[in-house]
Amino acid sequence: MTIVEKLSLLREIMERDNLDAYIVSGTDPHNSEYLPAAWKQREWISGFTGSFGTVVITKNDAGLWTDTRYFIQAEQQLKNTGIQLHKLRIPGAVDYPEWLATTLPAQSRVGIDSFCISVSEMAHLKQVLEINSCEIIEKTDLLGDIWKERPALPDAPLFTVPTEVAGKSVPEKIDFIRQVLQQRQADYFIFSALDEIAWLYNIRCNDIEYNPVAISYAVVGKDKAWLFVKRTKVSSTIYKELQREGIEIQDYHQILLFLDEIEKGTCFCIDSTTLNYAIYNRILSHGKVKDTLSPIILAKAIKNDTEIAGIRDACIKDGVAMVKFFYWLYQNLDKSLTECGVSERLTAFRAANESYVSDSFENISAYGSNAALPHYSASPGRDAVLQPRGLYLVDSGGQYTHGTTDITRTIPLGELTTQEKEDYTLVLKGMIALSAAVFPEGTRGCNIDAIARYPLWQTYRNFGHGTGHGVGFFLNVHEGPQAIRQDLKDQALLPGMVTSNEPGIYRENSHGIRHENMLLCVSATSNEFGRWYKFETLTLCYFDTSALCLELLTPDEIKWLNDYHQIVYKKLSPYLTQQEASWLAEKTKLI
Amino acid sequence: MTIVEKLSLLREIMERDNLDAYIVSGTDPHNSEYLPAAWKQREWISGFTGSFGTVVITKNDAGLWTDTRYFIQAEQQLKNTGIQLHKLRIPGAVDYPEWLATTLPAQSRVGIDSFCISVSEMAHLKQVLEINSCEIIEKTDLLGDIWKERPALPDAPLFTVPTEVAGKSVPEKIDFIRQVLQQRQADYFIFSALDEIAWLYNIRCNDIEYNPVAISYAVVGKDKAWLFVKRTKVSSTIYKELQREGIEIQDYHQILLFLDEIEKGTCFCIDSTTLNYAIYNRILSHGKVKDTLSPIILAKAIKNDTEIAGIRDACIKDGVAMVKFFYWLYQNLDKSLTECGVSERLTAFRAANESYVSDSFENISAYGSNAALPHYSASPGRDAVLQPRGLYLVDSGGQYTHGTTDITRTIPLGELTTQEKEDYTLVLKGMIALSAAVFPEGTRGCNIDAIARYPLWQTYRNFGHGTGHGVGFFLNVHEGPQAIRQDLKDQALLPGMVTSNEPGIYRENSHGIRHENMLLCVSATSNEFGRWYKFETLTLCYFDTSALCLELLTPDEIKWLNDYHQIVYKKLSPYLTQQEASWLAEKTKLI
Repeated sequence: MTIVEKLSLLREIMERDNLDAYIVSGTDPHNSEYLPAAWKQREWISGFTGSFGTVVITKNDAGLWTDTRYFIQAEQQLKNTGIQLHKLRIPGAVDYPEWLATTLPAQSRVGIDSFCISVSEMAHLKQVLEINSCEIIEKTDLLGDIWKERPALPDAPLFTVPTEVAGKSVPEKIDFIRQVLQQRQADYFIFSALDEIAWLYNIRCNDIEYNPVAISYAVVGKDKAWLFVKRTKVSSTIYKELQREGIEIQDYHQILLFLDEIEKGTCFCIDSTTLNYAIYNRILSHGKVKDTLSPIILAKAIKNDTEIAGIRDACIKDGVAMVKFFYWLYQNLDKSLTECGVSERLTAFRAANESYVSDSFENISAYGSNAALPHYSASPGRDAVLQPRGLYLVDSGGQYTHGTTDITRTIPLGELTTQEKEDYTLVLKGMIALSAAVFPEGTRGCNIDAIARYPLWQTYRNFGHGTGHGVGFFLNVHEGPQAIRQDLKDQALLPGMVTSNEPGIYRENSHGIRHENMLLCVSATSNEFGRWYKFETLTLCYFDTSALCLELLTPDEIKWLNDYHQIVYKKLSPYLTQQEASWLAEKTKLI
Repeated sequence: MTIVEKLSLLREIMERDNLDAYIVSGTDPHNSEYLPAAWKQREWISGFTGSFGTVVITKNDAGLWTDTRYFIQAEQQLKNTGIQLHKLRIPGAVDYPEWLATTLPAQSRVGIDSFCISVSEMAHLKQVLEINSCEIIEKTDLLGDIWKERPALPDAPLFTVPTEVAGKSVPEKIDFIRQVLQQRQADYFIFSALDEIAWLYNIRCNDIEYNPVAISYAVVGKDKAWLFVKRTKVSSTIYKELQREGIEIQDYHQILLFLDEIEKGTCFCIDSTTLNYAIYNRILSHGKVKDTLSPIILAKAIKNDTEIAGIRDACIKDGVAMVKFFYWLYQNLDKSLTECGVSERLTAFRAANESYVSDSFENISAYGSNAALPHYSASPGRDAVLQPRGLYLVDSGGQYTHGTTDITRTIPLGELTTQEKEDYTLVLKGMIALSAAVFPEGTRGCNIDAIARYPLWQTYRNFGHGTGHGVGFFLNVHEGPQAIRQDLKDQALLPGMVTSNEPGIYRENSHGIRHENMLLCVSATSNEFGRWYKFETLTLCYFDTSALCLELLTPDEIKWLNDYHQIVYKKLSPYLTQQEASWLAEKTKLI
């Protein structure tokens, strides 16, 4: 079916149900960034595959709202669909609620699947639509009527992370939630964000590509705790194991019945930024709610010593895979390697580790001007062939049973232009400055983002994405609450947090550069000026020094690079062949 | 009368009026930072002279709430008063509304002069006290009953800033407010912040020490504009001049009558962050309000070309005074100079300029360990004698008819310790890094504050105040909305804004260092990465290079310093004697 045909069918159903507009959100009942196929409704109705975007269909219009990251991609994917691109995060941007409020006639009926919108977003939508007296009509799975070949929800088996690996037992974690319940004087805390549930119950699954989570809800009460998950996913061994930890397992869809059966007046802590509106409404039919930022978000971000040890080990494995990959790549550069071909090879190098589970996101394997798109996705057949000149950028990561990695390197395949070398050097200077930063207790990511940008800024260069995001422990490669970016967010960096450090530069039709390491925030010292934190670099892989303009580096930067390279060689060489090791020795030699 | 006696008298009156608590705010009806004597109620009742603090008196307790800047001073000044210090801006701090809500019995009556609290603070106070069902009783001038020798409101004559100096005429400025009224569909905008009124009507006055403002209210309507100010302050010439500009003058206290006579339903734009609650309530008795951030705040911060030219000229005059002062100081260092003595001399050097009006704040003249208090105030007789060793810090500024200045220099009076030299150099590195910063459109002060701190942070050093504040045009030396500090504030730096750049370091019982220049934000360029801004340094005075550890400076920093010194010499030397000029040539010679 073409997009045009789908839209036409949807409009028939909208007419049947007397809807003036229908909103297809880009998320799922768990407010996920990456979705299982069954919930890729927005992609199905529009053809747009980005990780962020909402489609709105009215009788005469259809629009997609997405942000700067996806403008080029969206324009390509929406061609000939009749769906208009509405740009967000630009000056004067009008988001879809405001667009609806000004476009629809008063008292229009606006449909939405209330499972696929968070409580806080629904509150905002309602508030905006009220201006025009529009009514919101909850329509669960309206697309299901026309999406005949819609995939089922995934069925991957659930597995657990042993306490020796997670560092904290399930009972400890449940106790922590019970303390919050006591403070908040509530009966239950309901969790719907999949990585939060995975952390809470030390469970993992492969329901969603790259994100090792299980589609589920969790409820923690004063005496009992529940996991709502497709029963067929839980083996009897796992069932018993979870039971022993104090978790009662019920089927995924039983959550609704569970909520219907709660006593009148029962008080639920909910996190309105992630809980979907349908579940919230269900709670309200019998109980009441206290809106409470999920305490798991911060607890999960602050890695414990066992997790940190696991991540350090994962970084060794990851570094070995990267070095083997680059060595192989240079040996075979004359063999018409393609972006997709080498990307597969990289995945294979990672997969050779016994604790490898999957990649942590789709490899970004981008040669030359393709790397100028920060979120470039190579497709077989249409991907570039690597030439012995210019720069090749590879952003990739692995899910290991004891940690998640995220690394970007940009390597020279041959001769470089002066601009490429300058860009390469300035981006690295920024990455080093942030890696070496010392900062007082209370410092937030937005306070230090500029440290990574200063060398670029001084020459009027910049990059259009954040410098760093939180990284999960054998969980999502993107997690909060901390971030290192310009946007104001009042979350201090705290010891135990793992955050990426990935400045870059992107020049259309020319090249793209990004250097990325993972940083662990650690305590440094205390003195008369207070408590001090700094970063420990976790990622282990060389930066190609042949691409540097050495004259742009300060003695301190050269020292940082030499010290780092010494560690890289020391930690990785034991796992390399002799040829690989001596090649790495050359790559990490003092400058 | 002692503080103890005053408190006892106040408690009698509280009993008479059946009040369980009385709040004495640290501000006035205009939300001023610096107050005329008549409104120094908090100082009168407590003896505490800091610029920020609230006193609360209950039957059995009395407390002062203030922030980190004033802990040491408050402890000294509250000794033997029975008033307890409550520390704000520290972890676990409890502000006075929360303290009242938890300390008072339910249904207590809490008195406050509602002229001396802003609408937004009153809203917060009410919200917090409601928890405990406490009632707020508005008591205008309750202290007046016991403060017999209370000074009258000041009577200084009003004067105007000619359009040729202000760069924008009063009718233009009033028109700008009328455009806002139209957008907001309101009838009047009421202004109560004194520097906003001064800017709007191009008027100045000496009602408050250091701040060239007049105690007044202003109202702009669709067709008329009013200034409410003590009639005796306005000469007939000024009266006519203002009338020609379209301003009707009424007596200060007439504002209440004016508000009582407005038509029912009249709509006022008010800024709840500055307007006092009493006036707000008076408006509400007949009219309605729209809470609107005052558009003057941003308009005033973005200096026009005429203002900028005036400020540049003021910085030359200021720099000449500073250089003459330092030259004189070194010539007389053997004569037992005192902190207060040299401070008077500095004021005299500034006052020698024909366009000098007053200092822009009280000189901070601090030798040796006294400089470790960032807000040190020397008092005659108890001030230190300058010795031919260590560091002398002087933070000062002038009000000129065409600009306001703010400058800090720290100079060596003789031999320095290694730590003093290191501190001196690291602070200067930070100041230079920020001065030289280039940054993209949209960058906020909190995004670049760390640039000034990075060199200190790298050696676990820091300072406990913001790096920069906005500076007015022949107006308050502290103004918003921009600031360069860690606190999150969503205000981008914009071309035309003048902001101080004043990193420092303070070591108790040893020394204090601060280097401060004023920076003008200017457009730099536009390219594929967007629009770029940078700073132009306005302040003109040498930094003593003999106090530097040269080996800690990068070639770029040395170049910045040499370039700056060349400009300083070129711009100031024409106004110096030959001896002073050759002395400055030595001070600014290449390093």
